[in-house]
Amino acid sequence: MDEWQQRPVRELAEAIAAGTLTPAPVLQACLRKIDARERTLAAWAHVNRAAAPAIRGDALAAAPLCGIPIGVKDIIDTADMPTCYGSAIYEGFRPAADAACVALARAAGAVVLGKTVTAEFGLSSPGATRNPHNEAHTPGASSSGSAAAVAAGMVPLALGTQTGGSIIRPASYCGIVGYKPSFGLIDRTGVKPLAHSLDTIGVLTRTVDDAQYFAGVLARRELAMPLHGALRIGRYGAQHWGNLSAAAQSALQQADEALLLAGAVIGERPLPSWHDELQAAFSTIVLWDVAATLAFEKLQHLPRLREETRKVLGYDTPAPAEYDEALIQGETWRAALDALFGDCDVLLAPAVPDVAPEGILHSGDPSYCVPWSLLHTPSLAVPVTTGARGLPIGVQLIARIGDDARLLAVGRLLESTLQAMRASQDQAEPA
Amino acid sequence: MDEWQQRPVRELAEAIAAGTLTPAPVLQACLRKIDARERTLAAWAHVNRAAAPAIRGDALAAAPLCGIPIGVKDIIDTADMPTCYGSAIYEGFRPAADAACVALARAAGAVVLGKTVTAEFGLSSPGATRNPHNEAHTPGASSSGSAAAVAAGMVPLALGTQTGGSIIRPASYCGIVGYKPSFGLIDRTGVKPLAHSLDTIGVLTRTVDDAQYFAGVLARRELAMPLHGALRIGRYGAQHWGNLSAAAQSALQQADEALLLAGAVIGERPLPSWHDELQAAFSTIVLWDVAATLAFEKLQHLPRLREETRKVLGYDTPAPAEYDEALIQGETWRAALDALFGDCDVLLAPAVPDVAPEGILHSGDPSYCVPWSLLHTPSLAVPVTTGARGLPIGVQLIARIGDDARLLAVGRLLESTLQAMRASQDQAEPA
Repeated sequence: MDEWQQRPVRELAEAIAAGTLTPAPVLQACLRKIDARERTLAAWAHVNRAAAPAIRGDALAAAPLCGIPIGVKDIIDTADMPTCYGSAIYEGFRPAADAACVALARAAGAVVLGKTVTAEFGLSSPGATRNPHNEAHTPGASSSGSAAAVAAGMVPLALGTQTGGSIIRPASYCGIVGYKPSFGLIDRTGVKPLAHSLDTIGVLTRTVDDAQYFAGVLARRELAMPLHGALRIGRYGAQHWGNLSAAAQSALQQADEALLLAGAVIGERPLPSWHDELQAAFSTIVLWDVAATLAFEKLQHLPRLREETRKVLGYDTPAPAEYDEALIQGETWRAALDALFGDCDVLLAPAVPDVAPEGILHSGDPSYCVPWSLLHTPSLAVPVTTGARGLPIGVQLIARIGDDARLLAVGRLLESTLQAMRASQDQAEPA
Repeated sequence: MDEWQQRPVRELAEAIAAGTLTPAPVLQACLRKIDARERTLAAWAHVNRAAAPAIRGDALAAAPLCGIPIGVKDIIDTADMPTCYGSAIYEGFRPAADAACVALARAAGAVVLGKTVTAEFGLSSPGATRNPHNEAHTPGASSSGSAAAVAAGMVPLALGTQTGGSIIRPASYCGIVGYKPSFGLIDRTGVKPLAHSLDTIGVLTRTVDDAQYFAGVLARRELAMPLHGALRIGRYGAQHWGNLSAAAQSALQQADEALLLAGAVIGERPLPSWHDELQAAFSTIVLWDVAATLAFEKLQHLPRLREETRKVLGYDTPAPAEYDEALIQGETWRAALDALFGDCDVLLAPAVPDVAPEGILHSGDPSYCVPWSLLHTPSLAVPVTTGARGLPIGVQLIARIGDDARLLAVGRLLESTLQAMRASQDQAEPA
């Protein structure tokens, strides 16, 4: 792996701004990775080999993402590249504008290297992307291309979106960091909508530090904070963790150990009585919303949509009263989050129940992500270990709404402690 | 005026569906009005003279807007017509998809006659549209073309959007009905965003019945309800009504009389202590949001934007903490709406402080609309009377969030009672 790829993005950007590194070799290293693996991984819907910063000179030198290549999930508009939303009906479509998140990244000096493969409209019909750790397996979806591209070292930063589990799941399957911010933290202008009260822009990166740094630019605010005093972590629903795969259990146990080692006080946070109602409310909201957000596609292009998408659009739309009730349930549960967290700052929970399943027609189980999408809480997938067939698996950290900086700080602590544990294990067991 | 233009849209649609009327003469009547007045009124950004329903045969005959022409504000995407967002930088842009509201209207049999003029991005720089009642005056903005087109009889129904006062103000200035639903009632997919927590799709129509009927299709729910028992109306902030123009005072007085005559119990609802803070919170939210929603335009096309737009984009962006605080204020005030309404079902308030001002470079005072945009309440402009220079003026009715059906029912009652009052006055004073 190229040496620069081991460095934090904030250091790379500083080096480029200071003139000790130029953007060209970083970009070239990305393109070499793409050349080496894209044919089998299919992470990209479009690559712009002539990609360059949108700003120049002093403005670029002062910009926090100065010369850093990024990948953009292809349900996010770009004015200089096709945007196809993972759908044949939008083949070759060129939007008139960049999405807000793309414009903000470009204004910060980022170089948009290309568009990454998405499930059709970010829904349930995945693209052709394969898991870089084992190509017989799914990378997860719908931000499949972004996760695979980052995991394969094709790009250090990528934009994703999550309505149900579309950031946390692929990040966990691909062994990288996925960060879904608090609902609304990053402006959604120019992102193809699926469900207005759920859709959230986030990032896929190699490290928590990169996620914090990149998302801070997109959210237009500082997402770093120091951790003071005793850190209280809650094992969320741990009484059911025994039902998970051995890989998921091992990931949770290692994360648990690392957090203890880092000085955290760890308690239990049982599932609330309404936990089992979350999925139904989520489904009601999505079904009501897609009947409008995809009304044009259904009316004008139904036969050209993928089978899975047609299936979703073919379900009965819930009654307005059911939809209203689901929205009210969401509000009620969000109001109960303080009780759910209790005296804990951050929750530790599964991200996925197992490593990525085999095959690429289905993208795995999103059920551990859906609750936090509906609840609008920030969540973070942190890679922990490797299970069967070389497939990685992560865990999920969750914080209260708006407490994103603390979530990321805890994520950094978990990540660095896991690294230290691995390093000391490697020392203890010489090859 | 053509006879059909006096009939409710629901009757026209039924007649077309029953085969006793064909869509063609309705469309032709609209085009004749456009031919007669468009040169001076400039209500349209684009007219599709070959407009036809998107659905056919039995589907069309069963559709609630069967063959009804509609106008679409040009910040709303249409796949078969240019969409320019009122801005030179989007000249000739053709989106790949219809906005959800357009697709839903088309699926209901509506005929999209064209795109109506909007202020640039729905912000503060109005287009060239003139007030049909006096061409030396503004029609109000930003839904200026939709209001003028409906007022001039060019189209029976038009789509508008309101972030601050962009539906209620032009409706009131143009002597038509404007309905801004509860926040989120009509799906916003495919509408150029300005401020996510404020932008609301609504309708401009000749009558409250038409608004109820049209919006019901777009909101995918019945918006009619019978009024039972004593109707309680609150005069909102009436202690300050003496500061309004004579025309606005007269409109409020006539509406007040009509509601009394219709049997309503009318009480006083004083301004809450936080009333004066609403505008500042609104401005903070808009300034923070436009720095993202218009980030692309600012980064790539600043010199080609209109002066007023450049001015807004040139203001300092609020600090994140100020923005967060403004959002929290909005939530807090919404939670206090029950106290604000007290025992009243619906509030009566000014829509605008006077008839439309002279000139078309400024579009009048939105300050009576802004509070209800921030508060997410449904509001309805009902035309009442005519002031100086033949210029109409309306009043505003407001209901609790989600109580749209009641708002519209009270609006119908006000409208029909005002008509009865005028009819009896005409009889009492023979020419």
